[in-house]
Amino acid sequence: MIDHTVLKPEATVADVDKVIAEAVEHRFCSVCIAPAYVAHARQKLAGTGVLVCTVCGFPHGTSKPVLKAIEATGLVKDGADEVDVVAHLPFLAAGNVDAARAELTELVRAVRAARRDVVVKVIVESGYLLSLGADRGEQAIAVACQAVRESGCDFIKTSTGFHPTGGATPEAVKLMKKYGDGLKVKAAGGMRDLPSTLAMIAAGADRLGMSASVAVVNELKGKAPAAGGAAGY
Amino acid sequence: MIDHTVLKPEATVADVDKVIAEAVEHRFCSVCIAPAYVAHARQKLAGTGVLVCTVCGFPHGTSKPVLKAIEATGLVKDGADEVDVVAHLPFLAAGNVDAARAELTELVRAVRAARRDVVVKVIVESGYLLSLGADRGEQAIAVACQAVRESGCDFIKTSTGFHPTGGATPEAVKLMKKYGDGLKVKAAGGMRDLPSTLAMIAAGADRLGMSASVAVVNELKGKAPAAGGAAGY
Repeated sequence: MIDHTVLKPEATVADVDKVIAEAVEHRFCSVCIAPAYVAHARQKLAGTGVLVCTVCGFPHGTSKPVLKAIEATGLVKDGADEVDVVAHLPFLAAGNVDAARAELTELVRAVRAARRDVVVKVIVESGYLLSLGADRGEQAIAVACQAVRESGCDFIKTSTGFHPTGGATPEAVKLMKKYGDGLKVKAAGGMRDLPSTLAMIAAGADRLGMSASVAVVNELKGKAPAAGGAAGY
Repeated sequence: MIDHTVLKPEATVADVDKVIAEAVEHRFCSVCIAPAYVAHARQKLAGTGVLVCTVCGFPHGTSKPVLKAIEATGLVKDGADEVDVVAHLPFLAAGNVDAARAELTELVRAVRAARRDVVVKVIVESGYLLSLGADRGEQAIAVACQAVRESGCDFIKTSTGFHPTGGATPEAVKLMKKYGDGLKVKAAGGMRDLPSTLAMIAAGADRLGMSASVAVVNELKGKAPAAGGAAGY
């Protein structure tokens, strides 16, 4: 279930190689790494069964829709199996489902023309949306779920891990399952130890974006408790 | 000297319009806004003398060099007068001047083919570079200055305003003037009131990226002291 993740902007090739080796050892679902490292990861992971996941319009989501589509298509051509794109947050906060859906539809059409079975996840920064207030936040999550589902994307994803309003919460995951109508949910950000990770699975998460993956897996196996994971993601 | 800035990912058209109106009223050098808003700002600012500044590869700088070049060229075609691009930080931290210069050269050639007089500023996240330690940090700033100057970019810029290591400091600006050999310096992030702003000018800053611009200008004119500006930038 784990996308083993390193996305801090100063991450080096050595940092990426460490994540790749850990993902192979623990048979994680994928490594989630920055666009600049996709071709490198594709080469390193050939034949391992571990997928290459990357990000698009990350972490602000404020690039133009056409640029997101161009970026995602290039990343698929570089060897990405999965692309996590950040939605334009003001569309979601305003409840503008048409604008939110249009941006995602443009991207999905472009990437699926390059590769039919690429998985697209849409990051909606649920911490920010829920900070708008209980009713308005729930409405924004519902709009986000509708736009993601109707555009034909595969997952809705809670968080970048870089927004000051924080990462995934069980509350956000539950709302996404409530409004998603079968949409898969990726919880990302904020899972630092085994209890917080299990809470996200109990809330309904189908995939987990984590950097503390190895520590949490060791905790699960009864080894030393997770020390808190890396800062930032 | 001021690029009046709103770059938080949740900024709306209304937020951008407020910054535009303030920039026109106070005759700031530019508004600095996200890529998605460049065409809108271009239309609103026609005939005012206020420039349109935007960002590229923002705020992580981890997209591929070719994607940064494509994004920047599209933004110039949308009407941007100035583009602030985030450098790939690991190149700078490793002292790899060739890789750093190559990325910037590719971008500058692309944007100058679209418009000869576009101004390119290169964000190097000086807070992060200086967090590597005194000697290594100063070396990284020197490498950054060399890459920016030799690629033909116009400015070196301290910070995105979003990295946990913080924004501009007078120390960082002084190092950029020391190693820049005439390169212009934009200080961004962390100027919340008149004293911190004047300290950056005294250190040698040629341009200031600020969101608290109106409060600082009012403080300069002897009105109410700046209340601290917006969080995040």
